[in-house]
Amino acid sequence: MTQLNQTHDAQLTSWVPSAQALGCDFPIQNLPFGRFQIQAKQDDWRIGVAIGDQILDLRSALSVVAWPAEVARMLGPLAAGDLNAHMAESSVNRSALRAALSTSLQTGSAHQAALAKCLVAQSDAQMSVPCRIGDYTDFFTSIHHATSVGKLFRPDNPLLPNYKYVPIGYHGRASSINVSGTNFKRPLGQILPPGQETPVFAPSKRLDYELELAAYIRASNVQGEPISMVDAEDALFGLGLLNDWSARDVQAWEYQPLGPFLAKSFASTVSPWVVTMEALAPFRLPFTRAEGDPQPMPYLTSKANSDSGAINITLEVWLQTKTMADAGAPAARLSTSNFAEASYWTLAQLVAHHTVNGCNLQVGDMFGSGTQSGPKLDEGGSLLELSKGGKQPVELPNGERRTFLEDGDTVILRGYCQSPDGSPSHVRIGLGEVRATVLPARVG
Amino acid sequence: MTQLNQTHDAQLTSWVPSAQALGCDFPIQNLPFGRFQIQAKQDDWRIGVAIGDQILDLRSALSVVAWPAEVARMLGPLAAGDLNAHMAESSVNRSALRAALSTSLQTGSAHQAALAKCLVAQSDAQMSVPCRIGDYTDFFTSIHHATSVGKLFRPDNPLLPNYKYVPIGYHGRASSINVSGTNFKRPLGQILPPGQETPVFAPSKRLDYELELAAYIRASNVQGEPISMVDAEDALFGLGLLNDWSARDVQAWEYQPLGPFLAKSFASTVSPWVVTMEALAPFRLPFTRAEGDPQPMPYLTSKANSDSGAINITLEVWLQTKTMADAGAPAARLSTSNFAEASYWTLAQLVAHHTVNGCNLQVGDMFGSGTQSGPKLDEGGSLLELSKGGKQPVELPNGERRTFLEDGDTVILRGYCQSPDGSPSHVRIGLGEVRATVLPARVG
Repeated sequence: MTQLNQTHDAQLTSWVPSAQALGCDFPIQNLPFGRFQIQAKQDDWRIGVAIGDQILDLRSALSVVAWPAEVARMLGPLAAGDLNAHMAESSVNRSALRAALSTSLQTGSAHQAALAKCLVAQSDAQMSVPCRIGDYTDFFTSIHHATSVGKLFRPDNPLLPNYKYVPIGYHGRASSINVSGTNFKRPLGQILPPGQETPVFAPSKRLDYELELAAYIRASNVQGEPISMVDAEDALFGLGLLNDWSARDVQAWEYQPLGPFLAKSFASTVSPWVVTMEALAPFRLPFTRAEGDPQPMPYLTSKANSDSGAINITLEVWLQTKTMADAGAPAARLSTSNFAEASYWTLAQLVAHHTVNGCNLQVGDMFGSGTQSGPKLDEGGSLLELSKGGKQPVELPNGERRTFLEDGDTVILRGYCQSPDGSPSHVRIGLGEVRATVLPARVG
Repeated sequence: MTQLNQTHDAQLTSWVPSAQALGCDFPIQNLPFGRFQIQAKQDDWRIGVAIGDQILDLRSALSVVAWPAEVARMLGPLAAGDLNAHMAESSVNRSALRAALSTSLQTGSAHQAALAKCLVAQSDAQMSVPCRIGDYTDFFTSIHHATSVGKLFRPDNPLLPNYKYVPIGYHGRASSINVSGTNFKRPLGQILPPGQETPVFAPSKRLDYELELAAYIRASNVQGEPISMVDAEDALFGLGLLNDWSARDVQAWEYQPLGPFLAKSFASTVSPWVVTMEALAPFRLPFTRAEGDPQPMPYLTSKANSDSGAINITLEVWLQTKTMADAGAPAARLSTSNFAEASYWTLAQLVAHHTVNGCNLQVGDMFGSGTQSGPKLDEGGSLLELSKGGKQPVELPNGERRTFLEDGDTVILRGYCQSPDGSPSHVRIGLGEVRATVLPARVG
């Protein structure tokens, strides 16, 4: 696990004033990476670091400061828009770059004048997905989600017998992963109307979101050589948010016996910023099992994982309907949950499990956490859960109701870390947000 | 559908003598693409075309002949080892390259002297997977396989209600796809011993092969815009063989509710040569539905597909145990089946289905056909089927028996097209073979 260092010091401030704004996701203690181009110029893609409401453009920054040689070397691929190359750097090297960026952005830095010219307003940037994503694997780590959804299908036996032993996962579709802001059409597909035996082809009527974390992988193990729990934490580069949109009616008809397919592959949406594992270091928590639950198998166990395998991240779902947007009304919060509480498995366990059969991970692979639902009924990370399978509509502040998503609905996922008592010992480290709007289905 | 042209003429012969050998997979009518380097030199990867037991090295060939400008342009990326760039070319362009290669390799060609120096013996070549594979989707198209396997789990209700409506598929793991000849260790994983409630962690005892075709995709539709049946055939670049190795005991414990994961992702193996759809044109057959079966939905229907959507490809599984190899005994054929007979869906239908929800395909994506089992009991494309779920061992010619694969077993899949009566009107167009050996499981 990354040790705390001077970059985590809660007293640090930046010469970028907005980094100190109340509730800001991107203070100087965060320094997440994103890939962008300047909207008006449509020029080459480059990697930037979010600071306050600005982006430090690493392409410009490379040339205006006399960086130490090792830092300059690492800035090269980042300036060219290649986050994967940086992800593959050793943890020592990545820490060195973080320390250099932290120092340069601190109040009083000698580089302020030069770097101030390298700032781009986030509102002027066109973001892309943060890296070249290879394979995408989606997990199912929230036992509360697994239980709630299982209950809809099997009231007497909601949780399958393998759940407490196997970190259940499946392969997802990588090509249709979009960055926040990419709206998409409601999918069409085969749907079995209730009580019938012959499916119809129609737009999905049960379109849903799923509140997930995205974990970006930086390891590349040789096929046949698993990543042990001792090395698994180092396989993780950082985290973002993921909305794993799901067409529940398509899913119900297609998913036996090989799992979800077209119900998910029409679109998945990720947040633009990757918050590094180093930035998240102050928010680690012990990993524990409830009394009576089986202990994880040895290949899913390590002391470091028991001590601090979990991460205290607050997650939120917000919805803004077209009616709300037209009336200038803000989005309404539908639910909140916490990653440490929702997830039955840690990210390191997902890495160790994924590779224990010899499967090789590659730099830029993405893991979805699965829907992060908390233990309470109003902590469900999907409308399927909040509406009890579509039976109890969710009431919105303006009197609208939702069982599933309607055209024009905008879903926003947010995530952030903060010390539970709100004390200033840890500043807020935010993941930012991922948002997209449901467009009407294609006609014909 | 590709029209027949002069490259399909069964009377054509090549100045490469082995191309006329009896039973040769790679006569001049085939011209499949593969990616290779010369073993002894370990130099840059390049694309070649198989002819007889040789490879025409397109890197060398580019410089020794005064090709027409358009052909020379297309040879550029191929010389650099980039098959994806060629896959993205229009069908007119790809046909033009095929015609130029066919002419140059024909008996009497003016280019014989120059191109003879560009031949590399296949035995001297190190092959790689043929292209950069993006997403890998595995289907489940053999109704006989679905029924046989379903019967093992649900004797009274073997085929699920969605099967005859939905071309069932799921996302596979792309990173662990290897080329033929890449041996792999038996995977370890969680297994539930019969009659027990707690899993153990152990090497798979029910390791199996799956006889599949690999279809390489050349389309790149915009997300949200499906590929209709009219355009679906043009989305296909060509075919190879795929062994989708499966750990049945791992699969049985892990696969509910989200499908196969670690039971498959340890290794998949493809043949090195991609036989183009144009080369397969003489072997197309009508697509039909058995009486009483539902007709495919309109989005899975076209006249061209009804006329010639199926492909007459004979498929074979061969096994050589370590004992057989040590005794110098040849591999034994375990089963044979035919793609047109085994598959309930055509490749064009898989393309149309995959994209009907808006999912975007990319050049280099790979589709697995699913296990191609024929209607007869001895036509099963896996040991799971041939051994009735591990209950009836398969007898080998040397007296050995197999329920599942043992360490040291080499599995070879072969495929070829030939006119049913063996008449010379169509020469044999082979897919070559895919082979790999099971190595002992990693210890500890």
